[in-house]
Amino acid sequence: ALKETLKEFHFADIAELLEELNHDEATYIIKLLGSDITSEALMELDDDFRERILENLSPQEIADELDEMDTDDAADIIAELDEDIQQKVIEKIEDEEHAADIVDLLRYDEDSAGGLMAKELVRVKETWTVAGCVREMRRQAENVTRVHSIYVTNKEGKLTGRLSLKDLLTAAEKTKISDVFIPKVDYVTVHTEGEEVARIMQKYDLEAIPVVDEQGILVGRITIDDIVDFIKEEAEKDYQMAAGISQTVEADDSVWQLTRARLPWLVLGLFGGLGSVYIMQGFEEALEKFPILFFFTPLIAAMAGNVGVQSSAIIVQGLANDNVKGSLFNRLVKEVGLALINGTALGLLVIIFGFIVGQNQLVSITIAISMLSVIIVAALIGTFVPIILHKRGIDPAIATGPFITTSNDIFGIFLFFYISKVVLGF
Amino acid sequence: ALKETLKEFHFADIAELLEELNHDEATYIIKLLGSDITSEALMELDDDFRERILENLSPQEIADELDEMDTDDAADIIAELDEDIQQKVIEKIEDEEHAADIVDLLRYDEDSAGGLMAKELVRVKETWTVAGCVREMRRQAENVTRVHSIYVTNKEGKLTGRLSLKDLLTAAEKTKISDVFIPKVDYVTVHTEGEEVARIMQKYDLEAIPVVDEQGILVGRITIDDIVDFIKEEAEKDYQMAAGISQTVEADDSVWQLTRARLPWLVLGLFGGLGSVYIMQGFEEALEKFPILFFFTPLIAAMAGNVGVQSSAIIVQGLANDNVKGSLFNRLVKEVGLALINGTALGLLVIIFGFIVGQNQLVSITIAISMLSVIIVAALIGTFVPIILHKRGIDPAIATGPFITTSNDIFGIFLFFYISKVVLGF
Ligand SMILES: [Mg+2]
Ligand SMILES: [Mg+2]
Ligand SMILES: [Mg+2]
Ligand SMILES: [Mg+2]
Ligand SMILES: [Mg+2]
Ligand SMILES: [Mg+2]
Ligand SMILES: [Mg+2]
Ligand SMILES: [Mg+2]
Ligand SMILES: [Mg+2]
Ligand SMILES: [Mg+2]
Ligand SMILES: [Mg+2]
Ligand SMILES: [Mg+2]
Ligand SMILES: [Mg+2]
Repeated sequence: ALKETLKEFHFADIAELLEELNHDEATYIIKLLGSDITSEALMELDDDFRERILENLSPQEIADELDEMDTDDAADIIAELDEDIQQKVIEKIEDEEHAADIVDLLRYDEDSAGGLMAKELVRVKETWTVAGCVREMRRQAENVTRVHSIYVTNKEGKLTGRLSLKDLLTAAEKTKISDVFIPKVDYVTVHTEGEEVARIMQKYDLEAIPVVDEQGILVGRITIDDIVDFIKEEAEKDYQMAAGISQTVEADDSVWQLTRARLPWLVLGLFGGLGSVYIMQGFEEALEKFPILFFFTPLIAAMAGNVGVQSSAIIVQGLANDNVKGSLFNRLVKEVGLALINGTALGLLVIIFGFIVGQNQLVSITIAISMLSVIIVAALIGTFVPIILHKRGIDPAIATGPFITTSNDIFGIFLFFYISKVVLGF
Repeated sequence: ALKETLKEFHFADIAELLEELNHDEATYIIKLLGSDITSEALMELDDDFRERILENLSPQEIADELDEMDTDDAADIIAELDEDIQQKVIEKIEDEEHAADIVDLLRYDEDSAGGLMAKELVRVKETWTVAGCVREMRRQAENVTRVHSIYVTNKEGKLTGRLSLKDLLTAAEKTKISDVFIPKVDYVTVHTEGEEVARIMQKYDLEAIPVVDEQGILVGRITIDDIVDFIKEEAEKDYQMAAGISQTVEADDSVWQLTRARLPWLVLGLFGGLGSVYIMQGFEEALEKFPILFFFTPLIAAMAGNVGVQSSAIIVQGLANDNVKGSLFNRLVKEVGLALINGTALGLLVIIFGFIVGQNQLVSITIAISMLSVIIVAALIGTFVPIILHKRGIDPAIATGPFITTSNDIFGIFLFFYISKVVLGF
């Protein structure tokens, strides 16, 4: 009865139901139900939850689930297993071709096109007729949930074009494929990075893209649903990175997982803070004559941090979208201009505040000027650190959040006291 | 010749080429080339760039472009125009049905399903036969770039199910649609929010989803390419929001646009900083006996800010993904536990640092304890402010970045001095 009920559900809903249960209950249900129902649901589960369930399944039981999955999902699951179990599971997969396809996919980096593609696709040869093609297609389509495009290859298996289902519906039976197919097709190679695949599919509004190997042989297909997941995950990673969280975590992860992801960046911030302590000790003389300067350090640190984070966020996003154009010099002029405008506006507010509370005007002006300098430097650091990292092939996303706020705190506070010392002469 | 060359390009590539030119050149090319080539490229252009080009086109020229576009894109373009031009353009659209569809779409909020959908779709009636359906479909499909699913309606036009192209290929000609269609179909209504549409399409791996009105009448279709764009845009907005940038801007926007997006948050930070100045003036007595405390304020502010940003980022993401479960009390216990672990580790580092530089041990311990308290409070603010906003129907994303760092700076510094005063007694 439960079986009948669950069959009516979409696998994503079954996964949600399972996550309401504890691990033992969920494991029980997965064992109870046929893998035709549970395999896709298994795929949709939260990683940690799935890991615990898989620990309680035998290699045979895991293999049964994999038999029902698409090759891309099956390969992802195997990659999550301990190495000693991987081999056992692969041996138990009934369909040998399926198993070979899965093993083949394990070779690729998970964030590359090879790691994202599935082996399931519909392929026809240029030399076939439309009628033969429809027959072949019906056969192949059994394994392919959604037929987006039919890929056309030459005799050697090299990708040469594509055929739309719509065209196939309208062409005469005896027509040769070589006469009706579209000899232009977007594709990626197995080593193309996931972000590039996403960029191409978004740009050209593709629902699927074929993947070829180094020789141009058609080896797989990436579908948009997996790219949607990929884009979401990457966006969440970048968001967390900018917030100083170094591994992808979720609100419901364990305290220990959350600590591991968060503590490193806090320690970095702590060292930065201790650096500031050290710098201020070097300007101790000011304590007697201008203690007010020390009341302004959190404001200076906040301005340096906020400006730096704004600048770096815009640049990091621009680099990711490939729309940071023009020379470095022009960018420098623009950033300085922007910082001058913002810094002057904020400086005036500081002077007005000083006037209201009856602060020494020279001190107010000094604070405003040094804050303006701090804002300019912060904007430059926020802009150019990501650009330099990007040029060196390092992901600029690490230079956001705590990294920028910490370095800007130190530079900002030093600059603030140094300029104050020069102007006020203590 | 240029025409022939450009015809070979994908519209997204033509758009890229156009963006390399200045506005006059781009306008010239758009006028020169038929709207069959340029309309889709126009759609892919950067908003600002397109706006400037449209300013130089006559209502007739704009209408020609819109005639070639899908209704969803055409409606988006019209919405961008000045109100007085909108009417003129609509009147000049040749295809009256197309114009009516576009006008209909203008009614909906741009971030709702109605604002995302297009009118182009393939629909068949339950009562038709497969053969009649294929005939009808071929006719309708002319206007539909990609046929994902064929939607089935009853006599009144209410959505009752769908039919896959694959099924259509395999069914006998005389079969009635009512015998082969799938009476289960995911759909949204015109008022469903864009984020919910994206969530549904991602969850169920859909390439298109039908949209119905309040009566269940099939009125449009949303395709995954537009949802991919939507997801990307939303992620970028959230990322910028967390960095204290209030309107979506790009690295290449004007200094003025960037200032408008950035200055408000900096002013907020400035007021927060001035608040800190005020608080520290209240603890002036400490200047004589424990000036070292004032050297530690940037460190305290940094810790309060970093912890708050981490906590809020996790919660905001969790709320967006709908996976913040369990009671508020459990979350409170968890956050405090996490803060205790991180705070204790960081506190020990402060004490070790104090030992190395030969600092008064009581002062070191005081700093460590008050920092620990600040971290706990910061984590609670970072966690519960977004939750409270969310409960009140306000987008919790605004409570990230500068909002959290600013409020945590103030609370943190006050708490730090207050606890220090209690312990050290100045
Ligand atoms: Mg099972
Ligand atoms: Mg994979
Ligand atoms: Mg696109
Ligand atoms: Mg598009
Ligand atoms: Mg897949
Ligand atoms: Mg990235
Ligand atoms: Mg034109
Ligand atoms: Mg719209
Ligand atoms: Mg999905
Ligand atoms: Mg999926
Ligand atoms: Mg569209
Ligand atoms: Mg949002
Ligand atoms: Mg800060």
